[in-house]
Amino acid sequence: MPELRKDPIIQRWVIIAAERGQRPSDFKAETTVIDVNPKACPLCPNNEDRTPPEVFAIRLDGSKPNTPGWSVRVVPNKFPALSLNGDLNRRGIGLLDMMNGIGAHEVVIETPEHNADWDTMTIEQLSRVFQSYQARLKALSEDIRFRYLLVFRNFGVQAGASLSHPHSQIIALPIVPQLAKEKLNSARKYFLEKERCIFCDLIFQEKELRRRVVLESEHVIVLSPFAARFPYELHFFPQKHSHDFAQMSEEVLIDLATVMKRVLSALKKLLGQHAYNLVLHNAPNPVPRPGRPDFWGTLPYDYHWHWELLPRLTRVAGFEWGTGFYINPVSPEAVAEVLKETLEQLQQEERTGEVR
Amino acid sequence: MPELRKDPIIQRWVIIAAERGQRPSDFKAETTVIDVNPKACPLCPNNEDRTPPEVFAIRLDGSKPNTPGWSVRVVPNKFPALSLNGDLNRRGIGLLDMMNGIGAHEVVIETPEHNADWDTMTIEQLSRVFQSYQARLKALSEDIRFRYLLVFRNFGVQAGASLSHPHSQIIALPIVPQLAKEKLNSARKYFLEKERCIFCDLIFQEKELRRRVVLESEHVIVLSPFAARFPYELHFFPQKHSHDFAQMSEEVLIDLATVMKRVLSALKKLLGQHAYNLVLHNAPNPVPRPGRPDFWGTLPYDYHWHWELLPRLTRVAGFEWGTGFYINPVSPEAVAEVLKETLEQLQQEERTGEVR
Repeated sequence: MPELRKDPIIQRWVIIAAERGQRPSDFKAETTVIDVNPKACPLCPNNEDRTPPEVFAIRLDGSKPNTPGWSVRVVPNKFPALSLNGDLNRRGIGLLDMMNGIGAHEVVIETPEHNADWDTMTIEQLSRVFQSYQARLKALSEDIRFRYLLVFRNFGVQAGASLSHPHSQIIALPIVPQLAKEKLNSARKYFLEKERCIFCDLIFQEKELRRRVVLESEHVIVLSPFAARFPYELHFFPQKHSHDFAQMSEEVLIDLATVMKRVLSALKKLLGQHAYNLVLHNAPNPVPRPGRPDFWGTLPYDYHWHWELLPRLTRVAGFEWGTGFYINPVSPEAVAEVLKETLEQLQQEERTGEVR
Repeated sequence: MPELRKDPIIQRWVIIAAERGQRPSDFKAETTVIDVNPKACPLCPNNEDRTPPEVFAIRLDGSKPNTPGWSVRVVPNKFPALSLNGDLNRRGIGLLDMMNGIGAHEVVIETPEHNADWDTMTIEQLSRVFQSYQARLKALSEDIRFRYLLVFRNFGVQAGASLSHPHSQIIALPIVPQLAKEKLNSARKYFLEKERCIFCDLIFQEKELRRRVVLESEHVIVLSPFAARFPYELHFFPQKHSHDFAQMSEEVLIDLATVMKRVLSALKKLLGQHAYNLVLHNAPNPVPRPGRPDFWGTLPYDYHWHWELLPRLTRVAGFEWGTGFYINPVSPEAVAEVLKETLEQLQQEERTGEVR
């Protein structure tokens, strides 16, 4: 019997239809290789002049800006979806509301190595990527025009990536988007009623039930969410309540890097090379802004940041576009189970490798 | 300057970023051909035994059920996302809400011709498809377990289709999905305030502004929506207020078929063969249901049915998954303009063809 499930945070229903004939191991990933000649890659070292000048970099060798020698490099997107200059000019024509597309759009070049990825990168390098996100989140939150900052990573053609060099993106928006508002509303409502964080309560309940916990470390817990939209969707939460990823200590970042690397390795072992989207859900910019309506500016602390990992194994079709809810052919409990086994196998392989 | 626009019905923002370097004519559709041998096609005539027994058919020759001779044939989906038998059993575990996946999932086989499509079908055949939707909407609305009925069409691999034979799908759901609720809420709120339909007002305003009207016939108007999520997204509305597609007269269906065929022909001329999703947004099932919470059961008449046509030319990526809003690289006004030109060209070609 298929099951309808409601997301405990927002009111989104999904259909878990595990009987449609696809078991977890039936998924074969589509090819995701993007045909780019590394020499022509605008994100590789020695091609620094092919991007706009960097706004941030980690350079362990003390090399100069916009030259090789960087470990992580952040540059403005050459084809930005939003414009950095100008004012918002909010306006309307009758029923139609609009404003200028003011915002920032940056590219985080995660490593000089063209063929690296998060599962093969060192934990140190991956935590440097997270440090770069933090630096840019802090810098962009200073701009009073920006209300919400989004960090995301598209990997593979099916996930919308157009370059294969490891990179992620940061977008600063002049409004809090609807999805974030829904999550924030729900967290606030729950907090006002219970004086507890809804995410903390959900994590606590899932730990008690133990059916959807994929992995736990000191600082991070990975859940196969109860109302997952997509096969192998996973959510990464900090164990300790925190509304802002930018405030995490280096210890937490290293732990998160370790967990991310393990989980992505397990997914690759299970599914092969596959496309995915990875999205940070962080509290909106908390700075109060005089002279502007600012519903979210004062109290985002009942939020709990998390990363959502969304493998692109199925296609979104008419049903999803028509309803805003999703048919997921794989049960989240089966995903948790198979991933725990795979993580265990990977650890055994590592131990065996060490003995040799 | 990119522009942020808010959908006038629901609170969804989009970024219209027409400056990202893609003009309307830059889109090349991906190949959408599905490699199926027509002889092996389970939806073709003479293969009637390869689908579950039909629940409806239009048979102009009076042929028997589940034999050839049909013009349109509706069968249960062989791999349904929802189960027809059983009760809902609404239940919860702490923060988690669920119910049994009860519903209907049907396939509308639109024509016996394997290689036909809506732009090449006769207007009579296409209006028979619409008649079949009406018949099934009426029949399924009799089942008191079903709250919302969705008709949709996935064309091409990129749109999630797995069979190339022309077909659409009908899903009956035990709940009103979030997206429909948002539209209904907005329409109701507006009606309570103004005693007018928000969709009627939007159509009236767009007719006055004349920047996004693609096509008007006696009964149908096609808009390139102000806050389009996707390039070439189009919305089809009845000119006269109506909340229920199932109640439309044959005259309206023939007019809609004529308009659909013209618009899909123009899109194919412009973009080549391309994948798309087509979704009917109809009022929820209005039958009051004793003993159940039924917020939407009593007054859906402030709704205004419409079809949404969503070409799949771009990929949904991390930004969209992370925010619930969309970056559209093509301005809706440019789409309206280029489509009007193309429709005019097609009419001239038809006229020239007639003279020869």
